[in-house]
Amino acid sequence: MLCLVDGKIVMNVKSKFSFEKSCPVFFFFQVKVFSKSFPPEMENLKAPFKGIANDVKGRAGCYKQDWITGLRSGLGILAPTTYIFFASALPVIAFGEQLSRDTDGSLSTVETLASTALCGILHSIFGGQPLLILGVAEPTVIMYTYLYNFAKGRDDLGQELYLAWVGWVCVWTALLLFLLAVFNACTVINRFTRIAGELFGMLITVLFIQEAIKGVVSEFQVPEHQDTKLEKYQFQWLYTNGLLGIIFSLGLLCTALKSRRARSWWYGTGWFRSFIADYGVPLMVVVWTAMSFSVPSKVPSGVPRRLFSPLPWESASTQHWTVIKDMGRVPPSYIFAAFIPAVMIAGLYFFDHSVASQLAQQKEFNLKNPSAYHYDILLLGFMTLLCGLIGLPPSNGVLPQSPMHTKSLAVLKGQIIRRKMVESAKESIQQKASDSEIYGKMQAVFIEMDKSPETAVVKELEDLKKVVMKGENEGEIKKETFDPEKHIEAYLPVRVNEQRVSNLLQSLLVAVSVCAMPAIKLIPTSVLWGYFAYMAIDSLPGNQFWERMLLLFITPTRRYKVLEHVHASFVESVPYRFIAMFTLFQFIYLLICFGVTWIPIAGILFPLPFFLLIIIRQYILPKLILPNYLRELDAAEYEELTGAFPRTSFSFSSREMDISRLENEADAVERFDAELLDELTTSRGELKLRTVSFSEERKGQVYPKEIVEEE
Amino acid sequence: MLCLVDGKIVMNVKSKFSFEKSCPVFFFFQVKVFSKSFPPEMENLKAPFKGIANDVKGRAGCYKQDWITGLRSGLGILAPTTYIFFASALPVIAFGEQLSRDTDGSLSTVETLASTALCGILHSIFGGQPLLILGVAEPTVIMYTYLYNFAKGRDDLGQELYLAWVGWVCVWTALLLFLLAVFNACTVINRFTRIAGELFGMLITVLFIQEAIKGVVSEFQVPEHQDTKLEKYQFQWLYTNGLLGIIFSLGLLCTALKSRRARSWWYGTGWFRSFIADYGVPLMVVVWTAMSFSVPSKVPSGVPRRLFSPLPWESASTQHWTVIKDMGRVPPSYIFAAFIPAVMIAGLYFFDHSVASQLAQQKEFNLKNPSAYHYDILLLGFMTLLCGLIGLPPSNGVLPQSPMHTKSLAVLKGQIIRRKMVESAKESIQQKASDSEIYGKMQAVFIEMDKSPETAVVKELEDLKKVVMKGENEGEIKKETFDPEKHIEAYLPVRVNEQRVSNLLQSLLVAVSVCAMPAIKLIPTSVLWGYFAYMAIDSLPGNQFWERMLLLFITPTRRYKVLEHVHASFVESVPYRFIAMFTLFQFIYLLICFGVTWIPIAGILFPLPFFLLIIIRQYILPKLILPNYLRELDAAEYEELTGAFPRTSFSFSSREMDISRLENEADAVERFDAELLDELTTSRGELKLRTVSFSEERKGQVYPKEIVEEE
Repeated sequence: MLCLVDGKIVMNVKSKFSFEKSCPVFFFFQVKVFSKSFPPEMENLKAPFKGIANDVKGRAGCYKQDWITGLRSGLGILAPTTYIFFASALPVIAFGEQLSRDTDGSLSTVETLASTALCGILHSIFGGQPLLILGVAEPTVIMYTYLYNFAKGRDDLGQELYLAWVGWVCVWTALLLFLLAVFNACTVINRFTRIAGELFGMLITVLFIQEAIKGVVSEFQVPEHQDTKLEKYQFQWLYTNGLLGIIFSLGLLCTALKSRRARSWWYGTGWFRSFIADYGVPLMVVVWTAMSFSVPSKVPSGVPRRLFSPLPWESASTQHWTVIKDMGRVPPSYIFAAFIPAVMIAGLYFFDHSVASQLAQQKEFNLKNPSAYHYDILLLGFMTLLCGLIGLPPSNGVLPQSPMHTKSLAVLKGQIIRRKMVESAKESIQQKASDSEIYGKMQAVFIEMDKSPETAVVKELEDLKKVVMKGENEGEIKKETFDPEKHIEAYLPVRVNEQRVSNLLQSLLVAVSVCAMPAIKLIPTSVLWGYFAYMAIDSLPGNQFWERMLLLFITPTRRYKVLEHVHASFVESVPYRFIAMFTLFQFIYLLICFGVTWIPIAGILFPLPFFLLIIIRQYILPKLILPNYLRELDAAEYEELTGAFPRTSFSFSSREMDISRLENEADAVERFDAELLDELTTSRGELKLRTVSFSEERKGQVYPKEIVEEE
Repeated sequence: MLCLVDGKIVMNVKSKFSFEKSCPVFFFFQVKVFSKSFPPEMENLKAPFKGIANDVKGRAGCYKQDWITGLRSGLGILAPTTYIFFASALPVIAFGEQLSRDTDGSLSTVETLASTALCGILHSIFGGQPLLILGVAEPTVIMYTYLYNFAKGRDDLGQELYLAWVGWVCVWTALLLFLLAVFNACTVINRFTRIAGELFGMLITVLFIQEAIKGVVSEFQVPEHQDTKLEKYQFQWLYTNGLLGIIFSLGLLCTALKSRRARSWWYGTGWFRSFIADYGVPLMVVVWTAMSFSVPSKVPSGVPRRLFSPLPWESASTQHWTVIKDMGRVPPSYIFAAFIPAVMIAGLYFFDHSVASQLAQQKEFNLKNPSAYHYDILLLGFMTLLCGLIGLPPSNGVLPQSPMHTKSLAVLKGQIIRRKMVESAKESIQQKASDSEIYGKMQAVFIEMDKSPETAVVKELEDLKKVVMKGENEGEIKKETFDPEKHIEAYLPVRVNEQRVSNLLQSLLVAVSVCAMPAIKLIPTSVLWGYFAYMAIDSLPGNQFWERMLLLFITPTRRYKVLEHVHASFVESVPYRFIAMFTLFQFIYLLICFGVTWIPIAGILFPLPFFLLIIIRQYILPKLILPNYLRELDAAEYEELTGAFPRTSFSFSSREMDISRLENEADAVERFDAELLDELTTSRGELKLRTVSFSEERKGQVYPKEIVEEE
C-alpha cells in the first residue's frame, strides 16, 4: 500500500489492497513511483486502457477453464449456489419494498430483482472476476429516493418522467465509469482506508435501523394514498396490525440472529447446525410468514400488512420497459443537471464495486486466476447504462455477499490437507526431527493430497518452506516457537473452486424468483422491517469503529476483559487516549454524514463527506495522531490477537470420547471447516489475521528502513 | 453424610448436609451409628426433644448478639434488606395471582403477602436460623389448588367451607410437623440426595413454564365468571389483549434474563452494573408496567388485563379472618380425610424448609452461630397452625432466596482480606520464601485485618496452614503447584454478618406492601406470566439434571466443548453411557411426576413419587449403576472443574491501564466481590466447589478405606 507518513510516500507490502500479485503492471508502477516520489495519478492518465487491456488478457487465459471447472464440480456446486442465492435475494426483496414506499410504487421488488438477475447473468458471463456478486444495494435505493423526491417536486418532470430522467443520470454515470476504467482509476482505491469503509458501513447500519423503526411505526398508521374508510384501517385493526408488526419484526430479528450463530452451537448434529447457519435467515422469513397466517379468520384481510408490489406481468411493471422512448421528453436543463447525482453515484459504485471485488479475492483465499478491477468497472458502466435505459435501478458489487461467495467455495478440500500436514508435523516434532525433515514430510503429504497444477504447488510450498525453515536459517535456537498448528494455519493456502457456474446459477435463480412474486408477496412487511434490523446488527461485529465505540463504554477497571478475549491489535499498541480521540472524531463524522442524509434535496450529496474523508485521512489526521498509532487504528487489514484463552489443541481425557470422536471424524471435518472459516471472517467478509503476539507480527512486515527504525 | 453403598452404611465427611460442626450431638451420634452399623431412626425415637433442646440451647447463646450485631451494622443493612425484599415479594405476588385464578378468588395476592409477612416476622424474632427466608411457595399453591378443586366438588363443603376445611388440613400438618421435630427427624434429611432435590426443582420449573403458557393463552380468552358482553371482551379487543400479553410477557422475560447477568457486563460503571444485577428484575416489572400505560386511550380500559385482587380492607379480604369460627361446621369425615393431604404437605414442608435452611448455611459460608433444624420445624408447625386458623396459606423456607440472603450478607469484608493475603503470598513467592514464611506473613495480614473473636481466627488459620504447609509436610517438591490465588479462594472463609434485623426488616417491608396493593394491582397479568417463565429459565443453570439432559443433545464430536468450559466433575469421571442411563431414568421419572400433577384429585399425591425416589435411590439404583459412578452423578455437593481456559491472574501489558486500574481499585473491590460470589453460586444458591483437577479433589475426601481402594 502506498500511504503518506510524515509527508513521505512509503510502501507497505502487507496492504489491504495488495494488487501486486494480481496486477503485475501496477506493482511495477508502484515501485517506480516510490523510488521517484511521484504522485501515481499523472502516470495513470498517460496510459489509458492499460489496466483494461491487462485485465482482459489475464482473464482470457482462464475463461474457458472457468466454465469447465464449474461444470466438472457437478452437483456439489448447488450448495454454494443456493446459499448465495438466498443471501443475495432477501436484501434485494427488502430494498425493493423500501424503494416501493419511497417512490410511491414507481419502482418495486420486481425491478430490484430483475436488475439483480440481469446484471448477475451478464457479469457471470462477461465479467472479469466471477466471484463478485452483483445486486441492487442500499446506496442505490437512497440515491433513487432522493432523485424521486427531486423529480416529484418539478412540474416539468413529475412522477411520469422520473424514470426517464433517472435514465439520463445512468447515462452520465456510465460515462464517468468508462472514464474511470479507461484511465486506470482503480489504482487509487487503496486511498480508501479502513476509516472510510467502516464509517460508510456504519452509516448504512444506522440507515437500516432507521428504516426498521420507521417501518414498524408505519404499521400503526394508514399508508399514504389509501382509503381510510376500509375496515382494516379502523383504529382497532390498525392497532392490531401494529402489535403484530412488533411481534413479527422482533421475532424475525431474534430468531435470525440466533440461527446465524448455529454453527458454533453445542447441540444438534453437524449437518443440522450447518443447515441452520446457512439457511436459517431465509428459513426464519418463511417460518414467520407462515406464523402470520395463524391470525384468526375474524381479523380482516390485510392485517397483518403484506408486501405491496405489482406482479411482473401486470401493466404497472411492464409500462416502464419503454423508458428509453420517454428520455427525449426530458427538458435539456435537467439532462445536464443529471450530471451532479451521476458524479455521486459513479463515485459510490466505483468504491463499492472495487472493495467488494477486493474482499472476494483477499490474499488469504489464494486465488489462482488474476483480478480484473479495471475491466469490471468498464462492464459496470455498460450495465448501468442498460439498466437506466430500461428503467431498472442498476446493480453493483455487494458486501458481504461477494466474500461469502468465495468463502462458500473455499471449504471444499483445503482443511483436509491442513489436518494431515499438521498431524505429520506434530509427529515429526515428537520424533525431534530437524526443521528440514519436518518440511520434507509435510511436502510429501501436501503433494500427495493436492492435484492442482504443478506451478501453484511449488509457490505454496515455497511459502511454507520459508516459515518452517525460518528458525534454522535465522539461527534462532528456540524450537518451541514453531507451533505447526499456528504457522500452517496462517500460511497454508485455502483452495477456492474458481468458476462462473455458481454465479450464473444464482443469478438465474434470482430471475426465476421474479416469477415467484405471488409467493414473495405473502411476506408480511413487518418481517422485512425485522430483516432490516437484522442486517444492521449482523454487520456490527468485526467493524473496528463499532468495537472502539464499545471500548469507550468499558470502565477502566474492566478493560482487562477485552484483553482476555480475542481483540484487535490496536487495543494493546495504541494508548487509550488516542483510541478515544480517533473514535470520537469518527463518531462526530458519522453524525455529520447521517445529518446530511436528512437534508431534503442536497441529501443527494451524502457520499461527499466520504470522498472528503480520504483527504482528511491523508493530510490532516497524521498531524493530530502519531503516524505509528494512526497506522494501527486505521490498519490495512483486520488484525486480531488471540486472547489469554488458548483456542485449539484440546486433548481428550476420556477414552470413550476419543473413540466416538474418531468415528465421527470423517463426517465432522467438513463441518469443522465451515465453522473455522466462520470464526476467521468478520461479518463484512474480511478475513481476520490471527497472530499470537503483536510484536512478532510487526517484525514480519516489510517497512522501509526509516520506519522500522522509528518504531 | 451417611449413605448406603453396597448395603453398608459409610460416612462421607464432605457431605452436603454436614451437620457435624453445627450439631455436635448429631455428629457424635452419626459416628456411633457408623461403628455399630445400626439404622439411625431407632435411636431418634428413643430420644425425643433431644434435637429441639440442643437447638434452643445453641441459639439462646447468640440470640442477644443477633440483634446487637444487626443494629450495629447501621444503614449498611438496608442493601441486603431491600435486595431480599424484592427477591421474595415478587414471586409471592405472582403466586397470589395464580392462586386467585385457581381458587376463583378465595385466596389472592393479599393473603399470600400477608402470610409471608406474618411468618417472616415471627421467624425473624422467634426462629432458630435467622438467615432463613420464609414465603408462600409454589408447592403450597399447587396443594391449595387441589384442595380447592376437591372442596368445590363436594356439596357439603363447597367454596364456602373451603378455607375452614383447609384449616383442618393445617391442623393435621402442624401436628405432623411437631412429631417430626420432637423425634429428631431432621437427622434423616441427608437421605434426600441431589437426585430428589433436582428432580423436584425441575418439576417446579416445568409447572412454571406451564403456568406461563396457560397464562398467555388465557389473555386471548374471556376469564371465567365474566360478562362476555363487555366491550373489552369483544373479539378485536380480546385479540389485542392477547397480542399485548405476548409482547409484555416476552419483553419481561428477555429483559429480566439480561439484567440478571448485569454484573458480568463489560459496559457501565460497577455501581450501575451492581444495581441492575440486584434490582433489575423488579425494575423490569416496573418498566413493563409503565409501558403498559402507553397503550392509546382509544383502547377500552381493561386492556391490557391487570392483576385482579380485592384490596386488603375490602370485605372479600376481611371475611375469612374468621375462618376459625367455620371450622366446627366441617363434617367430621372431612376432618379425618384432611389427614391425607396433611401428610403430603408436612412431608413437603419438612423437606423444603430443611433444605432451604441447609443451603442458607453451607459450610463455605463459615457461619459462626449454630444451626436449629429441629427447633425451626417445630416453629414451622406453629406458624402453619396459625395460618390455617386465620385462613391464610402457610409459608415455609424458600429457595433460592434463603442462600441469596446469606450471600448478600457475606460480601461485606471477606474479599478485602483475601486480596491483601494474596498479595502478601505472591510477594513472598517472588522472594522465594519457604512455605512457613509465606504462612507467617499471611497470618500477620489476616490477624491485622480481622477483628472477630480469637477462637474463630485460630480455627481459620489452622485450615489455611494446612493448605499452605501441605507441600512441605508431604515432602512434595513441586512448589509451582501452590497457587496462592486458588488455594486461598477455596479455603479462606467468607464472613457473614449473622443477625436478625435484615430478615425482620424485609418481612416488615412485605407487610407494608400489603397496603401497597392498589399499586401492585397496576401490574399487567401478562407481566406476571413472563415472570413465571423467567423464574423457570433462571432456575435451570446449576441444576445438574438439566446440564446432563443438555449433554445428551451434544453430538459426540462436540463433547470436548463441555470439557473446555467449567463443568461438573462427573463429565470427566463417569462413562457417557452411565450418564445417559442415569439421566434418562431421571427424565422418565420427571414425566411420571408431571403426569401425576394432571390427575384431577389424586394429583394431591404428587409429592409421593419424591418420597418413593429416596427408597429407589438407596436400594435399587446402586444395583444398576456402579456405586462409584452413582456417587459422582448424585454428588453431595455441586462440584465444578475449571475448564481448559484459565480464569484469573491476567497481567496487564499496557501501563496506562495499570494506572487507571490502581486508581479504581478501591471502588472496584466491593463490586468484584459480588461478581465473584455470583460466579461461585448456582441459581439455586448452592456454592460451587471449584477444583483444578478431579483426582486432586478426590484425594482430599475422607472415605472409609475400602472405598478409596475400590477407586
